[in-house]
Amino acid sequence: MKRIKINRLTEYDTSPGQVLIKGWVRTRRDAKGFSFMEINDGSCLENIQVVADSQLSNYTDIQGITTGSAVAVTGELVPSPGKGQKWEIQAAGVEIISLAPETYPLQKKRHTDEFLRTIAHLRPRTNKYGAAFRIRSEMVQAIHRFYREKGFYCLTSPVITGSDCEGAGEMFRVTSLDPAQVAKQGKLDFSKDFFGQESNLTVSGQLSAEMFAQALGDVYTFGPTFRAENSNTSRHVAEFWMLEPEMAFCDLSGNMDHGEELVKYLVTHALDACDQDLGLFFKFVDKGLPKQLEILTSKTFERMSYTEAIRILEKSSKKFEYPVKFGIDLQSEHERFLAEEYVKKPVFLYDYPKTIKPFYMRINDDNTTVAAVDLLVPGIGELIGGSQREERLDVLESRMEEMGMDKEPYWWYLDSRRYGSVPHAGFGLGFERFLMMITGIKNIRDVVPFPRTPGSIDF
Amino acid sequence: MKRIKINRLTEYDTSPGQVLIKGWVRTRRDAKGFSFMEINDGSCLENIQVVADSQLSNYTDIQGITTGSAVAVTGELVPSPGKGQKWEIQAAGVEIISLAPETYPLQKKRHTDEFLRTIAHLRPRTNKYGAAFRIRSEMVQAIHRFYREKGFYCLTSPVITGSDCEGAGEMFRVTSLDPAQVAKQGKLDFSKDFFGQESNLTVSGQLSAEMFAQALGDVYTFGPTFRAENSNTSRHVAEFWMLEPEMAFCDLSGNMDHGEELVKYLVTHALDACDQDLGLFFKFVDKGLPKQLEILTSKTFERMSYTEAIRILEKSSKKFEYPVKFGIDLQSEHERFLAEEYVKKPVFLYDYPKTIKPFYMRINDDNTTVAAVDLLVPGIGELIGGSQREERLDVLESRMEEMGMDKEPYWWYLDSRRYGSVPHAGFGLGFERFLMMITGIKNIRDVVPFPRTPGSIDF
Repeated sequence: MKRIKINRLTEYDTSPGQVLIKGWVRTRRDAKGFSFMEINDGSCLENIQVVADSQLSNYTDIQGITTGSAVAVTGELVPSPGKGQKWEIQAAGVEIISLAPETYPLQKKRHTDEFLRTIAHLRPRTNKYGAAFRIRSEMVQAIHRFYREKGFYCLTSPVITGSDCEGAGEMFRVTSLDPAQVAKQGKLDFSKDFFGQESNLTVSGQLSAEMFAQALGDVYTFGPTFRAENSNTSRHVAEFWMLEPEMAFCDLSGNMDHGEELVKYLVTHALDACDQDLGLFFKFVDKGLPKQLEILTSKTFERMSYTEAIRILEKSSKKFEYPVKFGIDLQSEHERFLAEEYVKKPVFLYDYPKTIKPFYMRINDDNTTVAAVDLLVPGIGELIGGSQREERLDVLESRMEEMGMDKEPYWWYLDSRRYGSVPHAGFGLGFERFLMMITGIKNIRDVVPFPRTPGSIDF
Repeated sequence: MKRIKINRLTEYDTSPGQVLIKGWVRTRRDAKGFSFMEINDGSCLENIQVVADSQLSNYTDIQGITTGSAVAVTGELVPSPGKGQKWEIQAAGVEIISLAPETYPLQKKRHTDEFLRTIAHLRPRTNKYGAAFRIRSEMVQAIHRFYREKGFYCLTSPVITGSDCEGAGEMFRVTSLDPAQVAKQGKLDFSKDFFGQESNLTVSGQLSAEMFAQALGDVYTFGPTFRAENSNTSRHVAEFWMLEPEMAFCDLSGNMDHGEELVKYLVTHALDACDQDLGLFFKFVDKGLPKQLEILTSKTFERMSYTEAIRILEKSSKKFEYPVKFGIDLQSEHERFLAEEYVKKPVFLYDYPKTIKPFYMRINDDNTTVAAVDLLVPGIGELIGGSQREERLDVLESRMEEMGMDKEPYWWYLDSRRYGSVPHAGFGLGFERFLMMITGIKNIRDVVPFPRTPGSIDF
């Protein structure tokens, strides 16, 4: 008989008769003449209940089945008298694939997130983390589907890079040299290193994406990016995924339109496709989530210039720790006030002072601000950061000079402004931050399968 | 007016009247009273012809438009009298967005692949590389779609790793220390490094995927992997993408079934969804491609044990450079003979001697071979390499001891065999090799957007 996954069982309106399922025992309890097992196979949050009759030839063995053991069960799919479950299986045969010893860490009880991080290889077997990683998977796939439907091409931008996207953060070095050898020799000879020069792990695929947008039109990169910042906070990991769309013939306004459409699509899709798994988070993690997500899908996002935001902050009676004036980099307290107390919904802030933004952002006619945009979400903070890019070669070169940058390593980037330059725009969306937003998970380590943080690289 | 992309124009059966397109000028030529431009916007291989009448107010400027310039054109979409094109645009307005100087490297003439590699930031603007990277994109998206339809969950496995998947190849080191500082100090102090220990770029997501398969059932990872091998060949890059499915409750035979289904799906989908772009490769790169791809989609893949393969090689009258006997690692000449001359279609070779395979492959009952499998494709070589994994804790531990491995770093991997261990299997498919197979491109550097090879990390 062909095995059926547990998430397909609910699709039956009438019993197909005998089925074969394979999975892991979450719990088992004995009643008079019966043993009841809850089986999960990872395909969904829901377990299927298996009823094993004492008449089964290996009933004594069945009574020894422990939590975490693997079994294959054949039997009749019958309507379940239990509430909240459509079907159960009247076992005709229970094959024990492997027995888990009593030391299995995931016994039926609550485990702290901190403890589960120490067993990241086992935590996807729990309800919460199984749900979190199924949602993560669904969102990866939804991102690719969304962009295909919109006619964007996927660019796999390189992870190892010689450039640094103008210091978006501390970078990891990549080398083929043995550091112990380097230390022993007491000198560093890049000519012996793989790339013959300093090379790093990418902090952004944007510069590559800009090259491809000016060839294929609308593109996106979606992959791992890295920061070597020694921050042990609930919002930092060294390796995280970033989605970066880049659109030719697009300005700042089109960039905001796209960001809003993307976020609404993904949240709507999550609510639809992951309803069972999200339900766990609504119930046990954050009861306020459905309302927050509803705001994201139903409300038009506000759009407000940085200058206007400063005016609002200055006029507010709120006392801020960091003083407000034009030119400051907005602090979390300012952003929260604007999104959570002032507009009370997601807000795009745009046209930031050029003094606090990178070289590639387009200078506005005021020569003071650049066409940057951040999306601030109540309760989350910055979800999207992007800009219209400077497409005018002379303006871009002046800006780089003004900032004291060496233009030589960017010869190829400047080429794209030399030959057929067009207005274009794009942004980055932190994938983990998005997942935290829809699940209510508060620690970024808990939405990453195997998180990388200072001192932590097990698994 | 809202801009329309060129790939949507062919969808019109009757003219919608006025349209607005934006793109780059591939060629322009003057005729009496007219200027003809071929415009491409990257959405597809095809250009749209724009006919600009000398009556246009900026006709003199239009006559100065060079190859590579960016334009926005409004005008009536009219049936084209030219053959091979359905529509052309009778321009009502031509806005010059930017003029490319005559130094633009991509003038209308043939460029060598070698030259185009030196301008990897511009080559996607050519017909060939535009097509190659649209196909790459379509295949990325098709992989995610295929797996979603089959109920597999996507796992984003970590790029930075402390383990090494048992020496699949030379690894890059990752460090937050400045190698120049390390050299100066003359000693290496891992306690100051980000992870407090040696860390590397991953060579495979398999071990992570095994953990998740034993939680979520069927999973796949699809992302960048790395080799620091100093090989300057047409088949090696330092950074490449690998697709790695891993299936719980699956044996070697199911693994082969899955590999065959995957390859057939992807090739069939490419032929269907990328027909225009693939057409370029059929016409200009390899006229034999359609026949080769037809074999992949229509013929059942052969399955042959390593032992049988050795027997066939020994019996053949072919003279091989490397002598054949049980226990050897098959050389390219052997694999080619088997796939191209003997079975003349794709062939799965399975059950290899354990002496030439890694520790995690399942030992067969003969205690001599392991449940490994390679898929050999005529003209391509190995496309897939995988195995059923050793799920028996005691057998796995003995094997590791036999091979002199330190078990301690694998405590988590062994845990998965300790708790609820189940038969499982998976493989790796080199994404670039797959792209080379369907496009006929012979150099792996030409299917990677920004290839990383020894000494080469521009862009």
